[in-house]
Amino acid sequence: MDNSRRKFLGTSLTGAAMAISLPEIVKAAIAPTAAAPKIRITDNDVILFQGDSITDAGRDKENTSPNNSRALGAGYAMLAAAKLLHTHGPKQLSIYNKGISGNKVHQLDARWDADCIAIKPDILSILIGVNDYWHTLSGNYDGTIQVYRDDYRKLLDRTIKALPNVKLIIGEPFAVNNVKAVTDAWFPAFDEYRAAAREIANEYGAAFIPYQRVFDEAAKKAPSSYWTGDGVHTTLAGAQLMAEAWLQTVR
Amino acid sequence: MDNSRRKFLGTSLTGAAMAISLPEIVKAAIAPTAAAPKIRITDNDVILFQGDSITDAGRDKENTSPNNSRALGAGYAMLAAAKLLHTHGPKQLSIYNKGISGNKVHQLDARWDADCIAIKPDILSILIGVNDYWHTLSGNYDGTIQVYRDDYRKLLDRTIKALPNVKLIIGEPFAVNNVKAVTDAWFPAFDEYRAAAREIANEYGAAFIPYQRVFDEAAKKAPSSYWTGDGVHTTLAGAQLMAEAWLQTVR
Repeated sequence: MDNSRRKFLGTSLTGAAMAISLPEIVKAAIAPTAAAPKIRITDNDVILFQGDSITDAGRDKENTSPNNSRALGAGYAMLAAAKLLHTHGPKQLSIYNKGISGNKVHQLDARWDADCIAIKPDILSILIGVNDYWHTLSGNYDGTIQVYRDDYRKLLDRTIKALPNVKLIIGEPFAVNNVKAVTDAWFPAFDEYRAAAREIANEYGAAFIPYQRVFDEAAKKAPSSYWTGDGVHTTLAGAQLMAEAWLQTVR
Repeated sequence: MDNSRRKFLGTSLTGAAMAISLPEIVKAAIAPTAAAPKIRITDNDVILFQGDSITDAGRDKENTSPNNSRALGAGYAMLAAAKLLHTHGPKQLSIYNKGISGNKVHQLDARWDADCIAIKPDILSILIGVNDYWHTLSGNYDGTIQVYRDDYRKLLDRTIKALPNVKLIIGEPFAVNNVKAVTDAWFPAFDEYRAAAREIANEYGAAFIPYQRVFDEAAKKAPSSYWTGDGVHTTLAGAQLMAEAWLQTVR
C-alpha cells in the first residue's frame, strides 16, 4: 500500500477547529491523534457504515432507503448520520448502514459486493473485530489475530481496487473490561486486535477512531456500565459517545 | 397563573454561552428568544417527552425502560436524549418518551395520570397541537382554537397541582407549507395554534421552542422536504434540527 491514498484525506485539522464544540470526553480521547487530517464531506457524498452488531444496532434490514432512521438502526451510525444530515443539509448526502450483528471480517467479505461495492460509497466507515476475537472464546471460531489482519487487508485491497477514490474510516474494536461479557480473560489477547486495526488504518491512510480510549475516558465521568450494557454493545449514552468521536473524523 | 413559576427556570443565558457550538440554523431560529432562561439539568432528573406522532416517532410502547433508544423512538426526543445522556452522564438522568401518534390535547389529558403524573418528571416537554387543527380538516374532530387553549390550560393546571416543582418546556406546533399534507388551506387558521402555544408557555413560565421558525430558517439551507416528509413529520435531518433546538432550552 503506497502512501498516496493519504492524498484523499483532505487538509489538516487546525487547533482552532478542534476547540469548538468538542465535548470534554471526546476531546480527551481524540486529542492525541488530532494531527490526523479530517475527511472533507462534499456534495452528494454517499456515506456507508459497515460492521457488526454495534453498527447494526437493530436496523430495519428491509428498508434500503438512505437517510432513514429505521434503516440506520438505533446506534452510533444513526446518531452520527442525524448530525451529518443536519449540519450538511445543502450537500444532499446519502447515508447507509449495512452493519450486521455477529459479523467478523470474513463475513463482511462474503457480502461485500452487494453491501459495499454496489453502494459506491465516497466515505466508508468500518468497525469490525470484536467478534473475530470474542467468538474464539466460545470455541465457535478458530480465527487468529493473523487471520484478522489478513482478512482485513484482503477486504480493503478489494475495496480500493473497486473504489479507488473511497475515503476510509476505521474504528478501533473495543471491549470494556469488567462489564458483563468482558473479563480479564480477554486481555491481553484482545489488545492485539485493537493494535491491528490501528496498524491497518495507518497502512491504508484511513482515519482511525480510537474507541477504546473514548470508552476508557468516558469511564472517568460515569461508570462503564452507563456507556455499554455488556462491555461490547452501547447504551444510548455510549452510542452518542461513539457518534461524537466518529464525527471528529470529518468536516 | 402567577409568575412565580418563572423561579423554577434557572438563571439567564449569557451571550457567551449561546455563541458556543450553536449550529447556524438553530442559532438563527432561536436567537430572538435567547433572553429566556435555560432550564438547569440536575442530578437524577427525570425528563419526560410528551406529545403526538412527532414525539412518538415509532417508539416501542412495550418498553418502559428509561434511556432506551427503542423506548425513545426514532425522532427528536431520542436524539435529544442521546445528547443529554452523553453530556450529563454523571447526573444519572432518567429520560422517557410517552408521545402517542394522533394525539390532541384532550387525549394527553385522558392518559395523563399514567403517562405523566406517575412518572414524576422534573422536566416535562410537551409538543401538541398540530392534530388539534389538522383533524378538523377531515371533519373527524370539531375542536376549535378555544378548545385547544382551554384543554391545554386544564392539562397544565392539573400537572402543576400534582407536580408543583416541574419545569415546563412547550414546543410550538408547526406545519411546513407546500410539503404534501400542508397547503395554503391551513393558514392563517393554524397560526392561531402556534400563537396559543406561545401565549400559554409565557403564561405558565415554560421555556418555549419556536419550531416554526426553526423549520422556516432551515428551509433556507435545504428544501423544506429535506426536513419534513409531509409538512408535519420529520425526516432524520428534521428530527436532529428539532433536537438541537430543544437542547437550547436546557443547560
